[in-house]
Amino acid sequence: MNAGDRVRVDRADQTYEGVLLPSSTPDHLAIKLDGGYNVGVDRAEAEVEVLESDVYDVESAQDEQGQSEIEFDDDLPTVSLISTGGTIASTVDYRTGAVTAQFDAEDVLRAVPDLAGMANYRGRVVANILSENMTPAVWQDLAAAIYEEIEAGADGVVVMHGTDTMQFTAAAMAFMLDTPVPVIFTGSQRSADRPSSDNVMNAVCSVEAATSDCAEVLVCMHADESDDRCALHRGTRVRKNHTSRRDAFETVGANPLGEVDYDTDGDNEVTFRREYAERGDTDLALADDLATDVELVKFTPGMDPTLLETAAEDSAGIVIEGTGLGHVNTDWIDAIDALDVPVVMTSQCLEGRVCDRVYDTGRDLLEAGVIEGEDMLPGTAKVKLMWALANAGDVEDAIRDPLAGEIQQRSTPWL
Amino acid sequence: MNAGDRVRVDRADQTYEGVLLPSSTPDHLAIKLDGGYNVGVDRAEAEVEVLESDVYDVESAQDEQGQSEIEFDDDLPTVSLISTGGTIASTVDYRTGAVTAQFDAEDVLRAVPDLAGMANYRGRVVANILSENMTPAVWQDLAAAIYEEIEAGADGVVVMHGTDTMQFTAAAMAFMLDTPVPVIFTGSQRSADRPSSDNVMNAVCSVEAATSDCAEVLVCMHADESDDRCALHRGTRVRKNHTSRRDAFETVGANPLGEVDYDTDGDNEVTFRREYAERGDTDLALADDLATDVELVKFTPGMDPTLLETAAEDSAGIVIEGTGLGHVNTDWIDAIDALDVPVVMTSQCLEGRVCDRVYDTGRDLLEAGVIEGEDMLPGTAKVKLMWALANAGDVEDAIRDPLAGEIQQRSTPWL
Repeated sequence: MNAGDRVRVDRADQTYEGVLLPSSTPDHLAIKLDGGYNVGVDRAEAEVEVLESDVYDVESAQDEQGQSEIEFDDDLPTVSLISTGGTIASTVDYRTGAVTAQFDAEDVLRAVPDLAGMANYRGRVVANILSENMTPAVWQDLAAAIYEEIEAGADGVVVMHGTDTMQFTAAAMAFMLDTPVPVIFTGSQRSADRPSSDNVMNAVCSVEAATSDCAEVLVCMHADESDDRCALHRGTRVRKNHTSRRDAFETVGANPLGEVDYDTDGDNEVTFRREYAERGDTDLALADDLATDVELVKFTPGMDPTLLETAAEDSAGIVIEGTGLGHVNTDWIDAIDALDVPVVMTSQCLEGRVCDRVYDTGRDLLEAGVIEGEDMLPGTAKVKLMWALANAGDVEDAIRDPLAGEIQQRSTPWL
Repeated sequence: MNAGDRVRVDRADQTYEGVLLPSSTPDHLAIKLDGGYNVGVDRAEAEVEVLESDVYDVESAQDEQGQSEIEFDDDLPTVSLISTGGTIASTVDYRTGAVTAQFDAEDVLRAVPDLAGMANYRGRVVANILSENMTPAVWQDLAAAIYEEIEAGADGVVVMHGTDTMQFTAAAMAFMLDTPVPVIFTGSQRSADRPSSDNVMNAVCSVEAATSDCAEVLVCMHADESDDRCALHRGTRVRKNHTSRRDAFETVGANPLGEVDYDTDGDNEVTFRREYAERGDTDLALADDLATDVELVKFTPGMDPTLLETAAEDSAGIVIEGTGLGHVNTDWIDAIDALDVPVVMTSQCLEGRVCDRVYDTGRDLLEAGVIEGEDMLPGTAKVKLMWALANAGDVEDAIRDPLAGEIQQRSTPWL
């Protein structure tokens, strides 16, 4: 079974027929259905039959994709555009009458002529999924693809991604990769067929950021309601804070790291508010092992502690999204104490630092072995714990040490 | 077994000895330990032995509490101070060397002399627990106590509450009570023994709000880093957004409903930005039934759908905190479809409205029976579903209709 094969997939009550996409992994299959719609299927839950081999020549299609229609210009940097799916270059899905996510890098160049002249482009499809379907397995594919692109000479990488879980994937890349060049995530909150679509400005600003001096994993999205600048957020500190606004993404607890002033004449300017890792500071490295079986559990009043126990049953680690400074109902403490996997405490407040040394509940949690997640966002802490369990000698030290901008320096004493 | 009895409580590995507090309910016992520290115990999980009856005369103590040292003034309104616990009047807990929550209404009057002359006060202790230990059963006790205080003639109610879960309790009161007078929640982010404590200003501003014209359930806390005003947030729209700042509470998606300008000379001013329910508009009513077995499940990438199934097993309803416009991994949809309890979709973005009619995932979720939670905060949706299951004829209608300011009007078309 290879990418390009025509397959039939049976899963539960559903049967799909289509072409196996190159984004497939041993655990996860991606299939382009005849209507153009893509589905992702967990390999373990599906029966797959190859109907016809090589109906689609993936390699030559990918080779073509790699060749930009714009001539190679020695004076320009080379930017690798990596597509994972999402609204940014979505086309109408006639199956159900609304937008769904379909595009590859060549489509983006065709869709955004403004990108011409800014860089030489390489294109690559890692997945074509709505970002709510993103999994740690695809994070691993993406990290390997970014690594390969940089190794092959890309001066910067732009990752096109659905907005729903972009912050999780960006955080994952920040932990898995040491990068000497910018890795810029971007997406779109409004599809390309809407007059208010944000896809052109976000794409142009992302390429501008990818050719800048900041060798970090950043998210580049509309900074405000106007069409004149994008914000650059650290991947480990960013959060989608609005369901629909174009400026939905915010750096939590601080201003964004930087901005791109957008000029339709192409005279864009990238500025930064704080220090950052500069281009070439770091050698390229990949640490893409993940303990993918980590669960995040949000505590709310009246919650049954059984849920925590179930979450921990087949898990390598737990992140709790507690209240305030990092609390749960004291009835949970015995259950936490009984767990034999690392438990990291974060706060559903989102802003501010966890501190379990102030109140009894917190001190009892520390005695039960809870690791304070500092001021990490709960989602970032989940990703980091997956990474630390697979890569760090001492998980507690790794959780509490800033590795990729995910923990901010203490500012003022808070009590 | 009555309040004031000396009891021994055995629960799991722990044994407590102390005095049973009047805040106890048949399901939940509150015990004042000999060190002055209070613990809450689930009645079903504990064995209780009465060691000595009536060691403490609860009624006369409560009568004393009701009599303010300040003479009754016919020209002043009467405010009922109801204590549930929390930092606001905390004293040092010598058991472990840090602050814990201990106070009653009389302590507050003694601790905050500035309250004198603003109102006649009644005092009442409903619970004395850290707010992470708050349960739906205590919400029911509190709602009944507020109802009784208003029925007995209180012109306004101030509820002292720990900050961790204040937003959940305030939302619960907003659904359970129709109130003709203000019901103001307040707390403290810094204990009274800190120079930066916010307890005096928050208490004074709360009494000011409780004597205002706004007959809604509001949260009154520091508006910013200075000491000159408190914000008034609707209980159903407020969120603790910082672990430690005094101005941690924010109205999500809008400015606060109102403000109290704080003047140390007592010349405070209450102003409102938008329309509100006025004093006397509504007849007093209590609907305190709750289906307490509702779970909130937060979806994050890589999450095992088994957790959703476990959450639903003994539940009357589920609130999902999805991504973006209200999504989960499409692998979850079959599991959701199989549930036979109401499932309400909210968004972890917190701001903005859920809309499951835009993308395939959302439409499939609607077909699986998911109820869109509009722009409700996930925690508010959990409380509302508990209330709707016990009180509403049609749960879906009740969830989607604004009942207590929890759903904002659509402002601008968002696509």
